[in-house]
Amino acid sequence: MPDDLQLPQLMPGQLLARGVSRHLRSHDFVSVEELVPTPGLRVDVMGLGPKGEIWVVECKSSRADFQSDSKWDGYLEWCDRFFWAVDTDFPTELLPEGTGLIIADAYDAEIIRMGPESKLAPARRKVMIQKFARHAAVRAQAARDPGMVVLF
Amino acid sequence: MPDDLQLPQLMPGQLLARGVSRHLRSHDFVSVEELVPTPGLRVDVMGLGPKGEIWVVECKSSRADFQSDSKWDGYLEWCDRFFWAVDTDFPTELLPEGTGLIIADAYDAEIIRMGPESKLAPARRKVMIQKFARHAAVRAQAARDPGMVVLF
Repeated sequence: MPDDLQLPQLMPGQLLARGVSRHLRSHDFVSVEELVPTPGLRVDVMGLGPKGEIWVVECKSSRADFQSDSKWDGYLEWCDRFFWAVDTDFPTELLPEGTGLIIADAYDAEIIRMGPESKLAPARRKVMIQKFARHAAVRAQAARDPGMVVLF
Repeated sequence: MPDDLQLPQLMPGQLLARGVSRHLRSHDFVSVEELVPTPGLRVDVMGLGPKGEIWVVECKSSRADFQSDSKWDGYLEWCDRFFWAVDTDFPTELLPEGTGLIIADAYDAEIIRMGPESKLAPARRKVMIQKFARHAAVRAQAARDPGMVVLF
């Protein structure tokens, strides 16, 4: 399927997430979208690194999108590093200090500033990697077996 | 997409794997197909349970398919329980003792005999869950972003 045919189906934040997920692969991180670490929180992109590192990336397509998010600091306790992903037009001076910054579009991204590391406790990392695995496997199964969805 | 349109694209063993993966969901297990736990081994279905349990299911579509597999006992050290999945016509008396048995078709499956439990060591379980997570995430990403494949 030609790449551009995907674009109209995705919201602006999802397009940024797509570029972020592509870029994370170049750091040997795999990723999922819209994982729920705990009820009431849903992360845009969660990356899993080769040593079990967990990164969270929140994608903001505009100033309004950023300003309507009052929950972002709740994500910090679910990851080793936290990043914002925005496009080149975003006023990055709005973003809080002590967070990572990724400039993204629908096709790729670049890490401008690493989020400071705050390592997860081993027990929580174990839980998060297992949640990540289950989330990813459900989506992969839905993709390879579309008929399965109607059964459950 | 209607369910049956998928069938012609899959090999007999893959059809069994599809039914097995569907059935595992009813046990709250998610699954991936064709994971490589170590170079030279590729498991048909690896299931991940709610408590981090790892099951391996080898799918055999015929006597010849079973008899050509000399590697199956190599899978035992990568899982907590091992199962064969076969269709109703398979001569199950061929299967070695001390292994689990699942009767499957392309649509569903049933566990006839649990594989005996032989628990993974914690360090290996950790590695396997992480491999599972990465395998599943790569496939889920390929499904949601088909254009990504050409870039890497």
